[in-house]
Amino acid sequence: MPPPSAHPGSPTLADSVRLAEDGVHILDRRVFPFEHRWVHARTVEEVAVAIEDMVTQSSGPYFAVLWGMVLAARESAGADPDTARARLRAAGDRLIATRPTNDQPRKAVEWVMSAVAEGGDDVAAAALAGAQAGDADYRRRSREMGRAGARLLPQGARVLTHCWGDLYLVGLVEAALEAGLKPSFVCTETRPYLQGARLTSHTLAEMGVETTLVTDAMPASLMRAGEIDALVTASDRVTMDGHVINKVGTLQHAVAAQAFGVPFHALCHAPDPHSATGADVPIEYRDGDEVLHTLGRRSATDLVRGLYPAFDVTDPQFVTTVVTDRGAFTPERLPEYFGEESR
Amino acid sequence: MPPPSAHPGSPTLADSVRLAEDGVHILDRRVFPFEHRWVHARTVEEVAVAIEDMVTQSSGPYFAVLWGMVLAARESAGADPDTARARLRAAGDRLIATRPTNDQPRKAVEWVMSAVAEGGDDVAAAALAGAQAGDADYRRRSREMGRAGARLLPQGARVLTHCWGDLYLVGLVEAALEAGLKPSFVCTETRPYLQGARLTSHTLAEMGVETTLVTDAMPASLMRAGEIDALVTASDRVTMDGHVINKVGTLQHAVAAQAFGVPFHALCHAPDPHSATGADVPIEYRDGDEVLHTLGRRSATDLVRGLYPAFDVTDPQFVTTVVTDRGAFTPERLPEYFGEESR
Repeated sequence: MPPPSAHPGSPTLADSVRLAEDGVHILDRRVFPFEHRWVHARTVEEVAVAIEDMVTQSSGPYFAVLWGMVLAARESAGADPDTARARLRAAGDRLIATRPTNDQPRKAVEWVMSAVAEGGDDVAAAALAGAQAGDADYRRRSREMGRAGARLLPQGARVLTHCWGDLYLVGLVEAALEAGLKPSFVCTETRPYLQGARLTSHTLAEMGVETTLVTDAMPASLMRAGEIDALVTASDRVTMDGHVINKVGTLQHAVAAQAFGVPFHALCHAPDPHSATGADVPIEYRDGDEVLHTLGRRSATDLVRGLYPAFDVTDPQFVTTVVTDRGAFTPERLPEYFGEESR
Repeated sequence: MPPPSAHPGSPTLADSVRLAEDGVHILDRRVFPFEHRWVHARTVEEVAVAIEDMVTQSSGPYFAVLWGMVLAARESAGADPDTARARLRAAGDRLIATRPTNDQPRKAVEWVMSAVAEGGDDVAAAALAGAQAGDADYRRRSREMGRAGARLLPQGARVLTHCWGDLYLVGLVEAALEAGLKPSFVCTETRPYLQGARLTSHTLAEMGVETTLVTDAMPASLMRAGEIDALVTASDRVTMDGHVINKVGTLQHAVAAQAFGVPFHALCHAPDPHSATGADVPIEYRDGDEVLHTLGRRSATDLVRGLYPAFDVTDPQFVTTVVTDRGAFTPERLPEYFGEESR
């Protein structure tokens, strides 16, 4: 069983990866909300496999990697500090390799490795402190980003979202509710994993937001009819020139949004200084068989093969603003995100 | 059991509504290809309910209405001709009302009613002859439209299609194969009914065409990557000013096609002279609960409601050509379709 939530009152998915004495407990998003099943990862390798197997996704891998690194530090408890740090570095490499497109595992590893580098010889204590700081930082930045995003929404905003924005979306909705905007949401179901049907719409309903579910092919029709005020999605990565990498389908909705005069706001703590442009980001292809199944049941003829590019790249001309923890930027002004930091 | 196919060698779905002595047999597309189950409609009302219940769709309702009208004529076998014709008219009204967006039921009724009006006192014989003529005409026009469409495709064309184009698509593929174009197809799965996953991809595979299935959110990503040469869909209706009404999602794919320089060819025997523009066509909303389920199983949280606009309207600026049985027309030249007829 997982330990109790450290964030009571938050939606279920806002605290769905938890560290305990016996390992890391990860809520299985593949079956949520139909089942509340927790996967118990006792080792770094089990954490890595859980991420690869899509037990968790969106912000989930970030937290899984933070706590997975703590497990790695514990596994080296008897080793000398240099050996422990080397093993932690190897564990970090393993965890970063789980998801080629999403760069949050890398950020989580960096939190722990920089704490360990500065933390003296008690590597395990430094790793835990680094992971905890990474956890708190992510939540703080999501709240600040959420407030910046809410400022872009009109009263009574009808917001279209795709896939599951996790703490990014929770931060936005909390801020919109606090500001009295009374938003409502349209969620795409987001095949093949149905993150929208299962995770997003469930969480929005838990937060008391009026929510409507549509298939992945319907958003353009709603935008043409004037029924959407803004498209808002999270992003797995935003490049320095404003390309938004996110769950496949984001591009399609962004193109339609532009065609029908609907702004597209992409949520991202910060652009990625290591990615100059969209072509720099590898796109993960997952097993095409997943497109042929729904909730484990075959939903396509046996005579066809499936193709599953898990993410797509939205060009800056289809992006209205990138909403960060330092406010909203038009794509061409994203370099100012770091310029402001250095002032 | 249904009678044997009148079109041996054709794909299964090309002859999936059949008239017999004991009624009309309709292949149940809701479970095809997982099951080959035929619904047996003994009366006009049973045919109408089968159409409303989505036992068949796309071109299917056209044939179901043709043969349903023959059942109506048989039901009036002992009546005087005027009474029989009045009952046929009432049966036609009932059948036309089954599908507010698709105008093929109306055309099917017109085939039978015009034959009956000109056919003397043997109303049943005239109705059967009219239905048979309507069947043959539809197949001939689909073949001619298919040849016109194939002329727009390059050698080795990689074609994206959405939903299930039925005999329109079969006509196109037969013509492309005959022309040696060696086309390959990408099909969207087309939620919630999965027509693409079940009907389109199965039929293309039966015809020997290389076929890949994607979710409804992936086409823009493929078009951005230069992997699609043409978007081709059927249409439930095309207005005289070039608005294409088709399965919801067509708009989304057409908008993305334009953004990435991919032509969109809409297949339609003829524009509808009764529909001047898109606003004239009523859009059918089906039960939103269907979006919450996949193949009868709940696929969304219980906390959300679904919305299901079954069709959408693609504006002419997103349509490259409308391919008819008299050749391909740009949207603004569609009125010439009828102009040529009158010469």
